[in-house]
Amino acid sequence: MKSHRVTLTLHEPQRVGFVNITPDVEEAVEASGVQEGLCLVNAMHITASVFINDDEPGLHEDYKRWLEHLAPFNAGTDPARGGYLHNRSGEDNGDAHHKRQIMGREVVVAITKGRLDFGPWEQIFYGEFDGRRDKRVLIKIIGA
Amino acid sequence: MKSHRVTLTLHEPQRVGFVNITPDVEEAVEASGVQEGLCLVNAMHITASVFINDDEPGLHEDYKRWLEHLAPFNAGTDPARGGYLHNRSGEDNGDAHHKRQIMGREVVVAITKGRLDFGPWEQIFYGEFDGRRDKRVLIKIIGA
Amino acid sequence: MKSHRVTLTLHEPQRVGFVNITPDVEEAVEASGVQEGLCLVNAMHITASVFINDDEPGLHEDYKRWLEHLAPFNAGTDPARGGYLHNRSGEDNGDAHHKRQIMGREVVVAITKGRLDFGPWEQIFYGEFDGRRDKRVLIKIIGA
Repeated sequence: MKSHRVTLTLHEPQRVGFVNITPDVEEAVEASGVQEGLCLVNAMHITASVFINDDEPGLHEDYKRWLEHLAPFNAGTDPARGGYLHNRSGEDNGDAHHKRQIMGREVVVAITKGRLDFGPWEQIFYGEFDGRRDKRVLIKIIGA
Repeated sequence: MKSHRVTLTLHEPQRVGFVNITPDVEEAVEASGVQEGLCLVNAMHITASVFINDDEPGLHEDYKRWLEHLAPFNAGTDPARGGYLHNRSGEDNGDAHHKRQIMGREVVVAITKGRLDFGPWEQIFYGEFDGRRDKRVLIKIIGA
Repeated sequence: MKSHRVTLTLHEPQRVGFVNITPDVEEAVEASGVQEGLCLVNAMHITASVFINDDEPGLHEDYKRWLEHLAPFNAGTDPARGGYLHNRSGEDNGDAHHKRQIMGREVVVAITKGRLDFGPWEQIFYGEFDGRRDKRVLIKIIGA
């Protein structure tokens, strides 16, 4: 069994943003030499996501608006006023921990004949919900 | 290490629907000859889900109503009127890309002694949110 | 290829609660002898979740309040009054099947050099949404 590990470092200049990391994952698959296996891609931070969807800017704006509706940013600490108890720990990112749960932590992708085994529109995105600092994504590949 | 790959083609006649694909996955596990391993099952399309829950028709109706509440269908392109920017790309399925994020893209199931290692009520479903055409599900099995 | 399987039994005294199971998963990884591989951790019940986030009590209270907002508990069977069709099957846990979809069924974690390959704050939680009885979590490890 072969295995291969790569980490990516991302720095999203806004609080919320999406980055297509498919080329980085493809590169890691090629470097692994794995022909048949599984590729795990996960955010190593708990206010960020890795997810698969369409590389379409309008959709990404829709996601941002929708996530803001489902879990609004609020730096406050009083739930009765829309704040988050989490922010009492000195953070202002309570919303980001919620947005990440909607979009997910990780994806697992099949590797077939040495390549990501994707449908026609599948692309892998890093989703940032508390940006403006370096964060890491882990790529772990196992197979033969 | 053994590996095995199968794709299923589904055609949901409605826009939204759920299909129990557990028997297909069980068949793939048996064909793989894998005794101990992991089984990835994922939608290959980005307006569909694969998820594990109960095979209970009332629950599925509840899910449809709930997803419609969280991400309503709207063919329009103006977010101020409930539309989706994504629909400016010529689609009317902006809602489906959101519903799929709630229900997830994939499941990973353990294989133990040659069978899906399931709790008492776990069943695997294909979730369609923009149906009326052929779509594919990927089953990838690795193990020994 | 090595494989290892452990189940945990949890009994959450409340209807809803979160339990940090990271030490149990670490113990399973150590017992497996796997140095490089993947570790699947999933709820074996369909009204419970396994997810990765912060071990911070305020955040967990935020999650409970948020999930109650997104999928309120209601023992009734009439959707027009906030009930769930699922409850016509004799259950009162329709809400729990929805909360579990938000928080997810499973996580897949990389194993590197014999340890969970985690970012600085990642911790694995069991999320219970219909507690007060024994439930199981499956840990399945494969690798070399």
